[in-house]
Amino acid sequence: MPSIKDVAKRAGVGIATVSRVINNSGYVKNETRKKVEEVIRELNFHPNEIARSMTKQRSGIVAFIIPNSIHLFFAQLIYHFEGELYNYGFKLMVCNSSEQIEKEISYLDMLRQNKVDAVVLLTNNDIERYFEKGMAVISFDRHFEGIPVLSSDNYKGGVLAANRLIDAGCKHLMFIGDDAQGDYIRVSTEVSKRRIGFIEQAKKRGVTDVTILEYPLGDYIRIPEYVHDNVAMHPEVDGIFCVSDAVAADVIRHLEKRGIRVPEDVRVIGFDGGDSFINLGKRITSIRQNTEALAKDLASMILSYRDNKVVTNRIVPVTLIEGETA
Amino acid sequence: MPSIKDVAKRAGVGIATVSRVINNSGYVKNETRKKVEEVIRELNFHPNEIARSMTKQRSGIVAFIIPNSIHLFFAQLIYHFEGELYNYGFKLMVCNSSEQIEKEISYLDMLRQNKVDAVVLLTNNDIERYFEKGMAVISFDRHFEGIPVLSSDNYKGGVLAANRLIDAGCKHLMFIGDDAQGDYIRVSTEVSKRRIGFIEQAKKRGVTDVTILEYPLGDYIRIPEYVHDNVAMHPEVDGIFCVSDAVAADVIRHLEKRGIRVPEDVRVIGFDGGDSFINLGKRITSIRQNTEALAKDLASMILSYRDNKVVTNRIVPVTLIEGETA
Repeated sequence: MPSIKDVAKRAGVGIATVSRVINNSGYVKNETRKKVEEVIRELNFHPNEIARSMTKQRSGIVAFIIPNSIHLFFAQLIYHFEGELYNYGFKLMVCNSSEQIEKEISYLDMLRQNKVDAVVLLTNNDIERYFEKGMAVISFDRHFEGIPVLSSDNYKGGVLAANRLIDAGCKHLMFIGDDAQGDYIRVSTEVSKRRIGFIEQAKKRGVTDVTILEYPLGDYIRIPEYVHDNVAMHPEVDGIFCVSDAVAADVIRHLEKRGIRVPEDVRVIGFDGGDSFINLGKRITSIRQNTEALAKDLASMILSYRDNKVVTNRIVPVTLIEGETA
Repeated sequence: MPSIKDVAKRAGVGIATVSRVINNSGYVKNETRKKVEEVIRELNFHPNEIARSMTKQRSGIVAFIIPNSIHLFFAQLIYHFEGELYNYGFKLMVCNSSEQIEKEISYLDMLRQNKVDAVVLLTNNDIERYFEKGMAVISFDRHFEGIPVLSSDNYKGGVLAANRLIDAGCKHLMFIGDDAQGDYIRVSTEVSKRRIGFIEQAKKRGVTDVTILEYPLGDYIRIPEYVHDNVAMHPEVDGIFCVSDAVAADVIRHLEKRGIRVPEDVRVIGFDGGDSFINLGKRITSIRQNTEALAKDLASMILSYRDNKVVTNRIVPVTLIEGETA
């Protein structure tokens, strides 16, 4: 295992300089800092975590990495999370990864250098090899070995959607999402439980005709054109559960373009809370994620990290919000 | 004028410690830092700006203070601004002030201590006395002595709205906003030009019946209940221009509750871009603020600060987006 001496030697600097880079304290030339960081990565150097946490200067900053802050669900989460953090003396840094792994890595680097105290990560990238033991990372909706996860009760959301559609008389169900089974799937996230809960509950209620429409993980706002063609190939479907309100809005718009009435001909339920950011023309019936409660749990997980307590997974309840589409 | 020596003496610390606090370099105990900051404020001490900028360590962080990041317009601005900044090596810190001046001041303190490199501020508070000469502050939509302003072409927006309503045959116009003339008004912002452009253009086109409904500056999402009562007291009104899409959505919902059809009985135009975050049931006809262009201009103003260039005011063009409400 490489030591701080090895890093100093290879980078051509003193141990004190390496220490300053690691702890983000004192002045280090930008060039020197870059060189030292390069060597730290090359040698896969892990500074002694305990020694580091003893001496490190807290930045008071938490970084929140999300795919897209325009998405209303994320915007609400940012709003409430920032408010919670501020009450505890933390500032919030926001990063729209747009799924670019380099951007995500750069924030983990900041965490390693104590430029931020914790990172909350919502990603579909294979980022786990950039994690280090003891790093203050919280994952939203996605499981990584050794990293605590916060999520809504996605399985229950699927159950509520199935019940709602079946109660309304639907017999031919469909699930549309970017996180379904199939070749596309690279990662297993909490979000897939929306589909699983939906299918399992439909089966329990005696509805076995459930079509799954899947497509590669996208930008969270638009869905590929051919998905709509696939929907059109299933005229028997009378109830659709979508992985998000954004997807639901897109699906409803396309259905109505084809002269199919929602909810008269096809009932559609979304996920997130019905406050769709898309000016659709209808309030979406939706499974609501409680962004206030999620933000409170996130903040309390950050405090646990700060106080060196054990940070455990958390699941926040969801509710069905009645709209005009189901 | 107090010197760094005066600060050190009063705080009971060495000059080097005061310097470390000012430049945010090296280790200073939290308690000591607080004490020094207190004294700096008490004595109204201004460190020599040039000396400071020579030695200061850049944080690479820009703070963006907005009233409410859920508001879709702000969410879009954050998204594009973060992307632009990242390309230039800056990270974005987001603060929802909810108009709390203490929160805004705390970010200006961070700027003074070089914990952030620049602050972009959207506020209605009387915060100018917390500014210091040479501080890298950009104001959004609001004029402060000596601080560069970025805004959309609000006057032109008012003109476009008046033209659109009058072209459609409206003869009795109304403006509804939280930034109108009257006793309530504490500050003069760029936003008031929406109203001014609207009234002046209506007059130019021969329409002199323009009712102004004003109310105290609010939370940007909800408007006071009595405003809707006031709208009801003006049955002659056939065209309404609202200061934002959020207000327009609220007004339309209340009109329709009273059985008044939009746009058949009353035409309504909003401001921001028609992508209202409220699931209204209609696409709002709106004056679009170009958040991408605004973000690009913001980033370029930040770069000018970084490079010690003169930072000047900027105005970004607006366009009318056709919807279903006018």
